[in-house]
Amino acid sequence: MDGCIFCKIIKGEIPCQKIYEDDKALAFLDISPVNKGHALVVPKKHSMDLLEADDKELSAIISACKKVANACMKGLKADGISLDVSTKPAAGQVVMHTHFHIIPRWKDDGLKHWPRKSLLAEEMKKVQEAIKNSL
Amino acid sequence: MDGCIFCKIIKGEIPCQKIYEDDKALAFLDISPVNKGHALVVPKKHSMDLLEADDKELSAIISACKKVANACMKGLKADGISLDVSTKPAAGQVVMHTHFHIIPRWKDDGLKHWPRKSLLAEEMKKVQEAIKNSL
Repeated sequence: MDGCIFCKIIKGEIPCQKIYEDDKALAFLDISPVNKGHALVVPKKHSMDLLEADDKELSAIISACKKVANACMKGLKADGISLDVSTKPAAGQVVMHTHFHIIPRWKDDGLKHWPRKSLLAEEMKKVQEAIKNSL
Repeated sequence: MDGCIFCKIIKGEIPCQKIYEDDKALAFLDISPVNKGHALVVPKKHSMDLLEADDKELSAIISACKKVANACMKGLKADGISLDVSTKPAAGQVVMHTHFHIIPRWKDDGLKHWPRKSLLAEEMKKVQEAIKNSL
């Protein structure tokens, strides 16, 4: 899509540190990594985010993520992997082209999960119904 | 798999607040949500994590995640979605059955992304080669 930085990277108009490519997906290093080896996996076909991406593209992307994740485990001797997808600006999405983050993790790397909450059973039930009724 | 809590939930031996189900995937509310509507999407076929799950299962899971994410946007009037997959204990994985977290997000909900780092170009190049050579 015109003006999309990831589409320009995919077309080769902007350089990237490519890690992996197939007919549907491209993976390259994030220029501002959370941890060493932080990579982005993007579909070559433009979609804004996870909510609107085609299932076929998503299927190719998640397979590519698995490949890249396994390569990070082996090549960087990572202890684990965090896969993150931020959808919409409220979730921290900045580039409006679907992208999956692969973040290699190491024991005691200091990255903390978000805190958990406790919801009342009644509220949990309401939430369950609200989601189910929207499927 | 014997002893796996998610396999027991899939078999109906342990209750859950089910949101969505198809032949390959089950989605239910996380009992300790990060945000209202926090759901887990799991493959019915046991695999330990993203690194070893079959591509076919992953394809079904990511499609189910998209469905649940869209339902959270609509049913809970969420402003965005964070999708997270923690792989291996170093990344915070506790239940050793592949699971994808769908976390509804709202503007100013206070959840912060992990801080970014700056790596030297030379180190970025070494990291890129280490991952590429392991693919």
